[in-house]
Parts: sequence; C-alpha cells; structure tokens
Amino acid sequence: MALMTGEQYLKSIEELKLNIFMFGEKTENAAASPVLAPALKAVGAVCDLAADERYKDVMTTVSPITGERINRFNHIFQNSSDLIKKLKMQRLCGGRMAACLHRSAGLDAMNALYSTAFETDKKYGTRYFDNLRSFLAHVQGGDLTVDGAVADPKEPASESESSEIRLRVVERKPGGVVVRGAKMQNVGVCASHEIIAIPSGAVKEADKAIAFAVPTDAEGIMIIIGSQSDGGARPGDGFYGETEALVVFDDVFVPNERIFLNGETEFTETLADRFAAFHRQSCSGSKSGIGDVLIGAIALAAQFNGSDKDSYVRNNLLEMTHLNETIFSCGVACSAMAEETEAGGCSIDLPMTNVCRQNVTRFPYEITRLARSITRELMIIVPSESEFRSERLGEYIDKYFKAGVRTEYRLKIMRLIGELMFGSAAIDYLTEPMELSGGDGKNAESRQRELEDKKRLAGEIAGIDG
Amino acid sequence: MALMTGEQYLKSIEELKLNIFMFGEKTENAAASPVLAPALKAVGAVCDLAADERYKDVMTTVSPITGERINRFNHIFQNSSDLIKKLKMQRLCGGRMAACLHRSAGLDAMNALYSTAFETDKKYGTRYFDNLRSFLAHVQGGDLTVDGAVADPKEPASESESSEIRLRVVERKPGGVVVRGAKMQNVGVCASHEIIAIPSGAVKEADKAIAFAVPTDAEGIMIIIGSQSDGGARPGDGFYGETEALVVFDDVFVPNERIFLNGETEFTETLADRFAAFHRQSCSGSKSGIGDVLIGAIALAAQFNGSDKDSYVRNNLLEMTHLNETIFSCGVACSAMAEETEAGGCSIDLPMTNVCRQNVTRFPYEITRLARSITRELMIIVPSESEFRSERLGEYIDKYFKAGVRTEYRLKIMRLIGELMFGSAAIDYLTEPMELSGGDGKNAESRQRELEDKKRLAGEIAGIDG
Amino acid sequence: MALMTGEQYLKSIEELKLNIFMFGEKTENAAASPVLAPALKAVGAVCDLAADERYKDVMTTVSPITGERINRFNHIFQNSSDLIKKLKMQRLCGGRMAACLHRSAGLDAMNALYSTAFETDKKYGTRYFDNLRSFLAHVQGGDLTVDGAVADPKEPASESESSEIRLRVVERKPGGVVVRGAKMQNVGVCASHEIIAIPSGAVKEADKAIAFAVPTDAEGIMIIIGSQSDGGARPGDGFYGETEALVVFDDVFVPNERIFLNGETEFTETLADRFAAFHRQSCSGSKSGIGDVLIGAIALAAQFNGSDKDSYVRNNLLEMTHLNETIFSCGVACSAMAEETEAGGCSIDLPMTNVCRQNVTRFPYEITRLARSITRELMIIVPSESEFRSERLGEYIDKYFKAGVRTEYRLKIMRLIGELMFGSAAIDYLTEPMELSGGDGKNAESRQRELEDKKRLAGEIAGIDG
Amino acid sequence: MALMTGEQYLKSIEELKLNIFMFGEKTENAAASPVLAPALKAVGAVCDLAADERYKDVMTTVSPITGERINRFNHIFQNSSDLIKKLKMQRLCGGRMAACLHRSAGLDAMNALYSTAFETDKKYGTRYFDNLRSFLAHVQGGDLTVDGAVADPKEPASESESSEIRLRVVERKPGGVVVRGAKMQNVGVCASHEIIAIPSGAVKEADKAIAFAVPTDAEGIMIIIGSQSDGGARPGDGFYGETEALVVFDDVFVPNERIFLNGETEFTETLADRFAAFHRQSCSGSKSGIGDVLIGAIALAAQFNGSDKDSYVRNNLLEMTHLNETIFSCGVACSAMAEETEAGGCSIDLPMTNVCRQNVTRFPYEITRLARSITRELMIIVPSESEFRSERLGEYIDKYFKAGVRTEYRLKIMRLIGELMFGSAAIDYLTEPMELSGGDGKNAESRQRELEDKKRLAGEIAGIDG
Repeated sequence: MALMTGEQYLKSIEELKLNIFMFGEKTENAAASPVLAPALKAVGAVCDLAADERYKDVMTTVSPITGERINRFNHIFQNSSDLIKKLKMQRLCGGRMAACLHRSAGLDAMNALYSTAFETDKKYGTRYFDNLRSFLAHVQGGDLTVDGAVADPKEPASESESSEIRLRVVERKPGGVVVRGAKMQNVGVCASHEIIAIPSGAVKEADKAIAFAVPTDAEGIMIIIGSQSDGGARPGDGFYGETEALVVFDDVFVPNERIFLNGETEFTETLADRFAAFHRQSCSGSKSGIGDVLIGAIALAAQFNGSDKDSYVRNNLLEMTHLNETIFSCGVACSAMAEETEAGGCSIDLPMTNVCRQNVTRFPYEITRLARSITRELMIIVPSESEFRSERLGEYIDKYFKAGVRTEYRLKIMRLIGELMFGSAAIDYLTEPMELSGGDGKNAESRQRELEDKKRLAGEIAGIDG
Repeated sequence: MALMTGEQYLKSIEELKLNIFMFGEKTENAAASPVLAPALKAVGAVCDLAADERYKDVMTTVSPITGERINRFNHIFQNSSDLIKKLKMQRLCGGRMAACLHRSAGLDAMNALYSTAFETDKKYGTRYFDNLRSFLAHVQGGDLTVDGAVADPKEPASESESSEIRLRVVERKPGGVVVRGAKMQNVGVCASHEIIAIPSGAVKEADKAIAFAVPTDAEGIMIIIGSQSDGGARPGDGFYGETEALVVFDDVFVPNERIFLNGETEFTETLADRFAAFHRQSCSGSKSGIGDVLIGAIALAAQFNGSDKDSYVRNNLLEMTHLNETIFSCGVACSAMAEETEAGGCSIDLPMTNVCRQNVTRFPYEITRLARSITRELMIIVPSESEFRSERLGEYIDKYFKAGVRTEYRLKIMRLIGELMFGSAAIDYLTEPMELSGGDGKNAESRQRELEDKKRLAGEIAGIDG
Repeated sequence: MALMTGEQYLKSIEELKLNIFMFGEKTENAAASPVLAPALKAVGAVCDLAADERYKDVMTTVSPITGERINRFNHIFQNSSDLIKKLKMQRLCGGRMAACLHRSAGLDAMNALYSTAFETDKKYGTRYFDNLRSFLAHVQGGDLTVDGAVADPKEPASESESSEIRLRVVERKPGGVVVRGAKMQNVGVCASHEIIAIPSGAVKEADKAIAFAVPTDAEGIMIIIGSQSDGGARPGDGFYGETEALVVFDDVFVPNERIFLNGETEFTETLADRFAAFHRQSCSGSKSGIGDVLIGAIALAAQFNGSDKDSYVRNNLLEMTHLNETIFSCGVACSAMAEETEAGGCSIDLPMTNVCRQNVTRFPYEITRLARSITRELMIIVPSESEFRSERLGEYIDKYFKAGVRTEYRLKIMRLIGELMFGSAAIDYLTEPMELSGGDGKNAESRQRELEDKKRLAGEIAGIDG
Repeated sequence: MALMTGEQYLKSIEELKLNIFMFGEKTENAAASPVLAPALKAVGAVCDLAADERYKDVMTTVSPITGERINRFNHIFQNSSDLIKKLKMQRLCGGRMAACLHRSAGLDAMNALYSTAFETDKKYGTRYFDNLRSFLAHVQGGDLTVDGAVADPKEPASESESSEIRLRVVERKPGGVVVRGAKMQNVGVCASHEIIAIPSGAVKEADKAIAFAVPTDAEGIMIIIGSQSDGGARPGDGFYGETEALVVFDDVFVPNERIFLNGETEFTETLADRFAAFHRQSCSGSKSGIGDVLIGAIALAAQFNGSDKDSYVRNNLLEMTHLNETIFSCGVACSAMAEETEAGGCSIDLPMTNVCRQNVTRFPYEITRLARSITRELMIIVPSESEFRSERLGEYIDKYFKAGVRTEYRLKIMRLIGELMFGSAAIDYLTEPMELSGGDGKNAESRQRELEDKKRLAGEIAGIDG
C-alpha cells in the first residue's frame, strides 16, 4: 500500500472501535469530539507532509526491512546521518503544527526494541527480533500510526502494591499472554492504530518484563482522557492539538507473534535506556519546531504592533532563536555521536542525550518568558472570533484592535500565541519534556564515573601523584 | 456603613446594571456566568478576609480622610511602614486565592492621584484634590471596589489615528465632560462598583489629559470580555479567577466633581509614573502570595507522590522559595525607601520599583519550571472529578492514581497545579506583570543619569582626573 | 579622641607589633609591603571618608554608649532605619574603593554579641554585656579598627581531631583564659587594632564556646598570609586591596574583662546566626558598591572604545544595574524587617537574610560576564604603565591603543577592570560572599517550617480538608 | 621530518630571534622568562601528546597535501567527522593543560584560507591556493607551530585614522609587499614559528585586503606583552599558561609566495566569516577541556574537604557537567552540519557556530560560580608552597589545613583552582571566548532572514493568508 493521505488516515481511525472515556462517559464518536479532533488533525497533517513531493526526502525513506518507501516515522534508523534526518523531520512537523507529533514515542520504542530484541534472541535463542521485523513490515506496509506506551502510574505505593498497578502478564496461554495494568501519558493513543508497550525502567519480576504490540482497539483496552488545557481556545480557532490519556489494559490478550520481550528481566534496563535516549533526541527536534512557530508568531505580532524595530524586541527574538537552536544543536550532537549496533540499527549514549533533556526542559520557559515580554497581555485581552464577527461589537473590536494589517490577522496571531502559552501546545512544549524518562539516578551515576577521569586530569596538572 | 462581607459584596455587584459582552452577545446575568463568577468570588474573599478579626490589622486601617475603619484596599498610604503593610495585605490575599486581587490597580491609581491632584491644584488653583477626597470618602464609606483603567489600546497607528482610539474628552458641558475611547486590560471591571481612569503615560494633547471616576454601570460603558485561559478547568473545580476585559467609553458623561485632572498635560507623566511605581510594588506583594500557593501545592503533590524526601525535590522547593522571597524583598525595599509627599501620602522612586518589575517578570517563569520538574505531566493526565465519581471508571481512577492519601486529594491538588500553570491564575502570575506600565525608555533614562555617577567613581579609582 | 584621619590610622597600624608571615618568612615592615599596603590604604580611605564633612551623616553617628560622635563602623545599630544607614555607608565605601571594607566582620560580630551577651547575662548572671560595652567604649573612643575572626578551619577531620584545631580555651587562670586554635579568612586582621573572635556555629563543648577580644599584636598571635590574586597588577596601579590570612592563636591570654561568652554553649548558635544575618546584610551593601564601580568602569571603557551608543552595550549596562540594585534591595528589605531587641540593638531574621546571600553569590558572576562581553580581551592585552612610559615603545602603544580620550586613560580604566575581574577586588566581589556563614542546613530547616504554611494555603484552595 | 617532541619544540623556539618587549624593555631570553615559559610549556605538551602512541588517532592524521603523518593542528579538515576529531583533540589538550592551546587560531586561519584562496584564484586567476599549499607543506613537514593574527586594534577612530593603524600594504615591490600596522590578542605568537595574518572582517580598501604568512622573527616584527593575570601564582606552582601580546608589523617584507590574498576585497568578508566559524567551533572543544579540569579539581577539593557526599556538592557537579557538555555538544552539532567545499576542505555555517559562541561565553561563568560555591574562600586562604616548606610555619600549615589526604595535596589542588579562577587559565576560559570575531551585526542579519521563514510557519497555523 502507498503512503496514506491525511484524509485516508482520518477515515482509517474512524473505523477503529476505540474504547474512549471522557467526562465520565464513553465517547461514541471519538473522531468528531472537539477534544480529540485537533489531535487527529495533527497526525493527518503528518501524513499529508509525507505525501508531499517537496518533503519526500525528509518525511520518507526506503525501509531496509521491506525495500519499500515508507513514512520515516516507522523507520529503523541506520546511522548518525539517518538520525539527523529524523531530527529534521521532527522539526519540520513541529514547525507545521506547533503541536505534539503523536508518533515519536512509538518510533522511539521500535528503535529501542530493534537492537534489544536482537541481543535477547542472541543470548536466549528467542524469536523476538523476527516478531518485531514482522510487526514493522506490517505497520510500514500499511502506513499505520503507532503509539508508544511507556510511562507507568506514579505511585508512592510499596513494591507489593505496585504489582497490582504496573503492566504485567497475569496469565500465560499456548498462543500468547494476557496482560493487565495501566500506562500513563499516552499522548498518541487515540490517534493510533497500534500500541507498542515496553517497561519504563529496569524491572526485577519476570511478569513485568514484557514488551509487545496490540491494536488500539484490542479487546480489554480502556482509554481514559485526562483534563487538558484548551488555553481559552474558541470554536473556529482550528489549532492542532494533543490529548493525554490513561490506557488501562484490563486483561488484554497478546498473541505470541506480537511479543518482543517476555520475562528476560536483564534486558529491561537496556531497553528502557535506549528508549529514553531516542526519546530525548526526538524532543530536541519536535520542540525546536514548536519554538520556530512561537518565534515566528511573536515576530509577526511585533510587526502588527509596530514594535518590530525596537531594540528590545529584536534582542529578545535573537535570544529566543539562540535558545531554540541550542536545543536543536544538542539533538544533532547526540545523533552525530550515535553508534551502529549489531542488529543493524543504532544506539545513542544516554548521558549525552541527557544534555538534550536538560536544555529542552529549561529553555522553552525562558523562550516563553521572552515571548511574553513582547506581546504582554494582548493575547489574553483579544476577544474571540465571535465578538469580531458580531454585528453589535464588530466595529468596536475593529477600531480598538486595529493594526497595520487587517484587525482579523492581529486577533488570529494573538489567539495562536495564547494557544502556545496556555493551550495544548503549551503542554507539549513546556510540560511533556519534563517526563522524559530514563532515570536521574542513572544519569548521575554515569556522570559520577566520568568524574573520576576529570579528577585524574586535575590531579595531574596540580602535581598530585596517584 | 461597616465593611461589607463577601455575601454583601456579591449582592451589591448583582445589583449593578453592567453592560457586559461575551462571545459576541450581551450577558444578561453576569454574576452567574461561569466566566465571571470566579472573579467575583475572589473579590468576595477579599471582603471576608477584611471582615475577619484575625486579619484586621493587615486588611483594614483607620482612614485619615474619614476617621473610620476601612478596607486597606481603599487607603491612601502615609509612609514606608504603611506601604509595607500594603504588601503584606497583598501577599495574604494572593496566598488565599492564588488569583488576581482585582483591587490593586484602583488602589494604585487613587494613591498616584492623591499627590498629583494636590500639586496640580497648587499650581493651577483647581479643585481636584477636594474632588478626589470626596470620592475617596464615598468609596471608603461604602466599602466599594474600585477598578483602575490605565492601559491604552496598543496601536501601531499614527498619532492622528491614535486620537480616535485613546480615551479623551470629546465634549465639554457646564456640569462635566463627555469622554470617548477605550481602556484595555481591565481585570477588575466586572467585579467593581467604580472605575478610576487615568492616562497611561505622558500625553501632549489637553483632551487626553483626563483623569476621573465613574460607576462601572454608567451610561455608555461597554465591557467586552477577552478570551481567557481556563487551564482545563472543569465544573466543580471551584477556583478563584479573573477576567480581562476591554472597556469602551462610548460617550460617557463625567460630572465635574468626579474629575481629578482635566487638561493639565504637564502632570500626566508624573501621574502615570506614580501609578506605575505603586503598581510594580503591588505586584511584588500579590505575586509572592501566588508563589506561596504554588510552592505549597508542589510540596503537597510531592508528598502525595512520595517524593518529598528526594534531594532534587527539596532543592527545587528551596530554590522556588528563594526566588519568591526575592520578589517580595524587592517590594519591601522600594517601600522602605518611599518618601512622604506634601499632600499627605507618599511616593516611590520609579527606578527602584523597576527592580521589582524586572524580577516579577522573570522569576515566576523559573518558579514554574522548577514546579513542573517535580509534578511532571501528572497535572495533565489526571482525569476530571466526573471520571472519578463515575460508576464505570471510579475504581480504575482510584487504583491507578492511588497515593498515600485519598486519591481524590491527589486529583484535587493536581487540578490546582494545572490551574496555576495554564489557567487564569497563570495569566495573573505570568502574563499580567509584563504589562506593568511606566516606560522602558524612562527607566533607561534614569539609569543613564546614575551611570554618570558610577563613571565618576570608577574614574577616581583608576586615577583619571576630570 | 576625635575620629582618625587616614594618615593617623596608617601611623597607628605601623606602631603595632604584628606578627605577620609571608612566603615562609616573618615580615618585618608589614605596612610597607606591596601585599599589605593596598589593604591599609583601603581602611585609611574609610577613615578619610568618615572625617569628611560631606559624608558625616552616613559615615558617623552618635554612640548611645559614649554619647560621642563615632565612626559608624563601630556602632551598635538601634533599628531598621539605622540598619539602612549601615547599608548606605557600606555601599558608599564599596563605591569609593572597589575593595573589601575590612571592618564589616568586626562590626557584625559586635552587633551579634550585643544582644547575645545581654541575654546570656540575664540567664546566668554573667557580666558579658558590661564587658562588651566597655570594649565598645574603648574602640569607639579610640576610633579603632576591629577585625572579626569567625570562620573555622575547614576540616574533614573527625570530631575528636577537630578538638585540636578549633579555637578553644586550653587553660583557665584567675585573671582570664588561654586560647589555642586558628581562625581562617581574616581579611581585616593586618589592618586592625583589635580582633573579636566568636564561634562560627553551634558548639557543644564548653571550651569552644568562647567569644572575646584581644589586640591584633597580642602575645601568641601569628598571622599567615594566603596566596592572593593580584590580577596582573603592576607597580603604580595604585588600587585598594585586601589580604586574606590565617590567624593562629598559639596560646593567647585573654583577660576576664575581654570575655563575652565563656562556656554557655546554648547561646553559641544564636550568636553565630546573628552574626551570619548581619554579615549577609553587610555584603549586600558593600558588594553593590563594588558593582557601582564595575558598572561605571565598563561605561567609561565603552565610551573610550566608542561603543557606548551600541544597543547591546546599553542593554548590558541596564541589566548589570538591575542585578546590582536587586542585591542592594534585598539588603534594604531585611533591614526594614529587622526587630529591636531587649538589649537595645536589633536583630535580623536569618531566612530573610538568606535571600541577600543567595543573590549576592549569584549576580556578581552575571554582572562580570556582561561586563566582559563589553570590554572583551582588551583588559588583558593592554600593556603596563612601564611600556607606555618607555621611550622605545611609548609611541607604538599610543598609536595602537589610541582612543577618543588620552591613551593613558584608556589603559588606566582597562587596568582597573582587570583588577575587578581577576585581582583582589575580584576575590572580594566574587569569592568572599560564598563564605557567608550561618548554615545551609539551618536555612533549609527554617524554610521547611514555612513550607507547612504554604501547603495549608494550597490545600484550602484545592478543597482538601485537614 | 618526524613530529617534534616537546623538548625539540622548546629548543626550536629558543633558536628564534623573537623581538619581545616586557615591562618596557626588550626581553633577552624569552624562553626562560617566568611570564613566557608557561606558554611554551603548554605548546610543548601538545607536541608530547602528538608524539604519544596512545593519542595518535586524535592528535595526528595523514595530510592529504603531503601524504605524511602530521600533527592535527596543521591539518586541513576534510569533512564532518574530521571536524569532530578536531574537537576531540582540542578537548583532550584543554583537559591536559587547562590552558590556551595556542595553535587554534593559526589552524582556523589556514582552514579559512584554504577554500577562500581556491575561490579567489578561480575568479581572478591568482596563485594563492598554490602558495598556501606550499606553506602548509612547509609547516606540516617541519611540524611548525603557527600563530593566527586576526584581531585588529579596537579603535573608536574615524575611518581615515584607522588607515594608520590597521595592518595594510604600504609598499609594493617586485618580489613582495611591505606591510605595516598591528594585530591584537596574539596569544600564540611568542610560542610560534610562523604567523598567518588575515583581515578580521570585510574591508573595502585594497591595501588592507591582505593575508600572508611570515616567520615570527621576521625583520620588523615587535611583540609587546600585555598585562596578564597570574592569579596569585607562586614559583613552583608549575601551571601551563598563556601570554597575550600586541604584534606590531613595523614595515615587514612579505615575499610573493607567502601571500594568500592581496587586494581582492570582495573575498575578505567570506574569509573572516570562515575563520570566525572555525574559531567558535574550536572554542567549544578547548573550553570544554578546561571545564573538565575545573570540574575534576572541584570534585577532588570536595573529596579532600570531606564534602563530596553532600547533596549540594553532587548537584553542583552534575550541573557543571551539564553546562560543560552543552558547550561541547554545540561544537559537535555545527561540525556535523559542516559542508565540503570545492577546494577540498570544508566550511561551517556561521549562524550555527553562533550557538557555540553564545554558550561558550555564558556557561563558563556559571560553572565558575558553582565551583566557587563548593570551594568557597579556601583557594585564596591557602598559603604558598614556601609557607608549607618553611621550618617555622610548616607544622601550623599542616595542622590547620590538614585533610583526609596529605595536606600538601590539598594546598596543590586549591592553588590549581585559584589559577583556574583568577590566573591565566581564567583568562583563557572566561575572557578569550568573548573575543570570537565575526560580527554581531552579521549574526543578527542571518537570523533576521530565518525569521521570515518562521513568520510564515506561524501565519499558516494561525490562518493568515499571504
């Protein structure tokens, strides 16, 4: 099958029997819901970009598995320059939508599994690598969207209680296993055809050492939508969006050929680390894309306000750009230092991706601050489209918000900025990166080891022997 | 009349005939609207605090004008220690509501006018000071809430066009004047009995050099509500809030005894600077109060998550506290250096208040970032009250969000944090301070003068004569 | 006796028999040494300022103890406004010398002892308060300079070993006690007539709970000069300076009337905290004074370079000023919140002074960075006075460093900036504040208590009862 | 000839007849001077590293020009991965010496000239590329050290005056040209065999569009040493160092075969930009190497102080590491995005290197601040080696500075930290990067162009057409 268009994608999602709950009730027509539609629209836009000849080189590639041209969001990255292309794709998409791309977590989970399944097979003679390649051929061929289910419920519970809530195998049957538990922060689940689930860190119990893929509408899956911010969005604003959800696996059957890890606890840490490393790199690409939009929106707003020549506006825009490019640079850097693996993909050094992570969880706040010092309160004060269209108020709005351009444009750009500051784009830009898993403890540990080398350097220069 | 209770206040606002527009239509029952109710609730809470014996010393004082005990939000501050009490009141209220106090702009406008009206009278033999004192006696006696209308429409228009949109006198009659134009960012207008309007900076044309007070439901006033962020608020969350509005003065008559400046352009700059100075000081008090709530909410969330003993959580909380106290300290410092004026009130040095302003427009972003690195995405993922109460989902929510405390508490605190990050509290905390008027140009200028002194110091130490 | 002039001061120091060691040898003529002379010059300049009629109000006051006019550096502060005057004095002096004032630690030790001695007497019937007042009358009357010896050797030693190095009583005689041990970081000791020694924190052993004063040339005192930075200073640069020293008390006899605490361990923590609080406040004054000089020097350098109209230069200067004023504001704020004590002096809340401390250990680095982005490498490349005066090179120097002003001036201002970046002024500005004692643990603890209040605020708004 | 050892290098420098002036007089035995020796020692150490088999891959490569193995500091970089190796070499050397590498400017000048000379020849039929390749073969073959002379005197002079001080051709002869003028900030000149001089930016006058190489002891060259900081260094500390100098070309003859640009003004901007881009990249490598030493020294100091387990020490070390790795990452990123040129070398995008530059002029200050909050004043208080060795004082020093390790080690590490904070290492780490040329104006301009793309992205999402 060829690559899907956005329209084909939307239709394919509508055909799924997703079990979604919102405000306490089951949602019958998910795709039409104002909460979910902006997320579907975002993934549809990714499809359209991939189908666009101009972006062919960035958005698609030829799969080493199928030999066919595929959406790069379903690709196993081969080397450094391939990883840099991934970043460029994410920045392009981030810049087109100013929203979550929904597909990065699934992509990163596939890539983390690729080498891990290979290594597990090598040691234990299992067949996970073949399973994974078949699954990949399936999603690449059908151009399917894949959600990554990684984050576990955050519980302060004791280890024994945690057994009750972590995703785990509760029954083993000849043809497969039955899993139970929940995964949090599933941003792409309502917009995906498949879910890949992997452990979020090292696990000691064999039942929890489980990685697999199932369709999003598999029997037993419940999707519970969280409270989102709509940033004051009004009907007709038409922004792209995202929807965070809790996914409950209420006894879901996973057939053997969809299992990629099953009890080999010693590989769980490696798998989780590899996912974390890829996902931090992803963040560098997609968030710098959102940064592009925010910077552009502020530049437009300043132009409409007539302040674009002011020295503080120019300085702030330069500083915002510097910070945004630092975020991107750190993604490029860890990509450039990636190493190829025996399985045929590649892996990125975890501590080096921590540099990405630290910056992508800091600079967006400063960028936002600088942005707001330019637009000030205007983004909050602007009335909605309905005021502007109203016969009674239209002339007042036009008069008091008039700019060098059509007043309507000024209102629109302010609405977009409001969305980027307080709406679902803000959640993606400011909050989501905070979640980048992989363990502070582990980062600290690796750094600790490096510290010994540095102490040696200092000791030698200081003249301390031994 | 005694001080109003919150209930009396709400009733008094309901009795006003406010001319409010939302989503393109006139709002019939404003006080009941879910958009406006949280703002009224906030001002009502200020009234209740003032009526509470425990806060009597902070929230009330004896008016030097009427000799009666009044709400401190209607007080003319006499000296440094009085100004420090103002800060304490604002921090107390900010901490109780985590929302805009709605009354600071009006309070700061009164105080700025107090000395300016006195000085104008002294030079021109006008009677503005008496007018102001009568107005103050009226609002102090009736315990009325007063909005400050200061910010002008932000137009890139030419000076001639600006004549069409700035608030100005369009007709002069024996008993008063007729004004036309608009004021932006009127956060308190829907919750106030009176509006004081003053110019936002130096004006050269006599018609725009106008300061006055009118009731919020005066003939010709239109209140147009802007798009707000609700941060994903759900019915029943019950937070305090704020509502930004554009106020159009569509030919409003102002009687002579309500005029506090009328054509004396030379005093407009002083008046605007004094307002800006007081308002920056106010921000230091109210925003450090919101900071208190945010820090407390994060500490509770960490406790519910079981991470409150982690060293990074403790360090982040300490750092958040440090930044919050720096904001407060700068407010105390400019208060402590205030000078008494001939009129009987006091004034604060503008450049010194700029220190407040710079910090209050920076540190809340860093505080927010530190906060989010503790709660991560949880605040977005938590479902609404309705999910939790739902028969179908309640047990799942309870299981997967369970904490050391009742799950319900964990959801509640996360909802509050969401509100503080993306809701109307966020607008007040992060965006509103950006608007603090008074002119970068002017701050730069004053600093430039100080620079000459500093150059002299350096030259002397370096051994450069002359 | 009247206030000393700088000249009288220098003569009085020369007459002392200080036991100073430098580069491994006893220094015979300390006052003439190029390492010590800049420090003495600095204290001499403080004396001259105090004798100058123009600064009388800031630099001097009437002692409540003697009823005579005294140098404010020997004063017991009575209330908030008195403490704000202290800050102004320190900023004035810092701005005149861009160097350590040498007298703040002694001043802060006196003030910390004042209330503590009073309270100890009250509980134990001792006579420390009288002893202290007599000592104060002595130094106030003679206009003597007093060093504060507080910091203990930093040892990773076990408690038992620490007994060997901490300052303590090793023998008790009828007329007094014999003390042994060392105090670090005695910046003022070579420039002082007297030393006040106090514990640097809570101590449990009675022998170490000792506070006293002795002349700097008392029998048994050894002063060992540390390595200093001279920042590339060349003879003739003529800057003010400072000299850090280790003071060894090698069995020094302290007569009873010079003892202010002797074994009352329960008061050691209070004493140390009070000292820390006063000393953090001091830092806010003196470092903002150095900041004034640095900002002024950079402004002059930019003017000489012809870049003073560039927007980034102006922005950097404004930002440097903002940070410098934040440092000062936090000093004003904690002063304004000080409380009067029963003894007659006043005390400052330790956590509030921690705000001072955190900022004064951060912003000077950013100020320095901004400064350097203006001067760039010029300060390092400029040759010394001797090159400029040399017949062979003079014309080349003149040609290639020529500026709008005399080349000599450009060299001089660059030399001053070098000193402020890398010389002894840099040590005072950047490193010394890091030492501000008082205990991170304790700051954290106080903040922890405040956290409970904040949690209550958040819980109430969120609707969590209990 | 094979690669030089450090010893051979030192001998080769001693044989030069350098015309060096210090403190107003000609320096007869430069290599033995305490000011210059540390710089020579640093370059000697680079030679020794290159000769060390363990570092062969990083420090050396096979020249595409000569086909021989050469020191990588004389290499023309071929592609991205070659540039990443350059960074690794610089980090290695920075980490071994904590000092300026002295050879980066020359290296970057060669590489910038390589493609520029090629392109100039292509347009004008000149022979600069051949000249350059011959020169490169000479320095590669002889393993010579090459200084880069780029920075012009900073004058506020008018353009006409600037003609008098900028380096330029003052006479044209058959066999070559005579140049006059000066270059600033020549850090490597006293330690080099050759100087490459290039314009520091676009020039309009043909006489100033001159690039060439001459030996450092060519007739007419005067080297005037600037004031340096020695950070309190004491004889025997034995650190590596650097020496900034003004180089005056007092009518120096340059033979035709040593000329690489001569009057082709249109290529000056490209040349200067390419140099700036390479040099910013260099800074990322060498400064992260110094950062390694500083972090290691602080870790050792904390260990000796017994505070290495404290949470704030560990957090500070992690943060220092993060900032240091961000500096390095930005160097890797711009290297990874470099493009190959027709001439056979490669070039780096200037705006992307600006990300390096901004971070390398910021983070070292914050790293230094964090470092100092760990060591506090100890680095200043520690006495010199001579005190420790003194019979009279040794036992006191040993007693009061005792640590878990030999006291001597503690003194040594503190001396190193002092050097890194205030000595010549500090100049290299903190000040030198500020000088990274290439033009703020130009960076701003490029960013301005990018802004248009970003505005388009925002406009599309907001729904603004056109």
